[in-house]
Amino acid sequence: MRVKLIVTLKNGVLDPQGKAIQQTLNGMAFDNVSEVRQGKYFEIEVNESDKGIAKSQAEEMCKKLLANLVIEDYKIL
Amino acid sequence: MRVKLIVTLKNGVLDPQGKAIQQTLNGMAFDNVSEVRQGKYFEIEVNESDKGIAKSQAEEMCKKLLANLVIEDYKIL
Repeated sequence: MRVKLIVTLKNGVLDPQGKAIQQTLNGMAFDNVSEVRQGKYFEIEVNESDKGIAKSQAEEMCKKLLANLVIEDYKIL
Repeated sequence: MRVKLIVTLKNGVLDPQGKAIQQTLNGMAFDNVSEVRQGKYFEIEVNESDKGIAKSQAEEMCKKLLANLVIEDYKIL
């Protein structure tokens, strides 16, 4: 099955990329945009039919590779 | 309100970054991972209380800045 997950910067961690996007949007007449935060999105195809097992494997992958837990959070969708 | 959206590569567009992640996962004992696709995730704070208007503005932002529609799709969550 296909597991979808997102990795985002924790609240309070500076996001210069998001800030740059926000400023660009403000300059493009989207002047009501007050904040942009950018994260990563992953779709992982796991050869495992059990949804629970696939999700717990995805959680392991986040902890070991996909997310830096010092500054990032992950969420399995 | 806060609009969340993802931008992904279209099916068929090569994703070398996803491929590299897949190979790394395979080498870390996650050998049942057959495909990884990576995309971008955005959280945009729009000063607009109407949900419909905020979402249609987010769609405009995707078309004009956030997504390259030649090779990418966007989805507003």
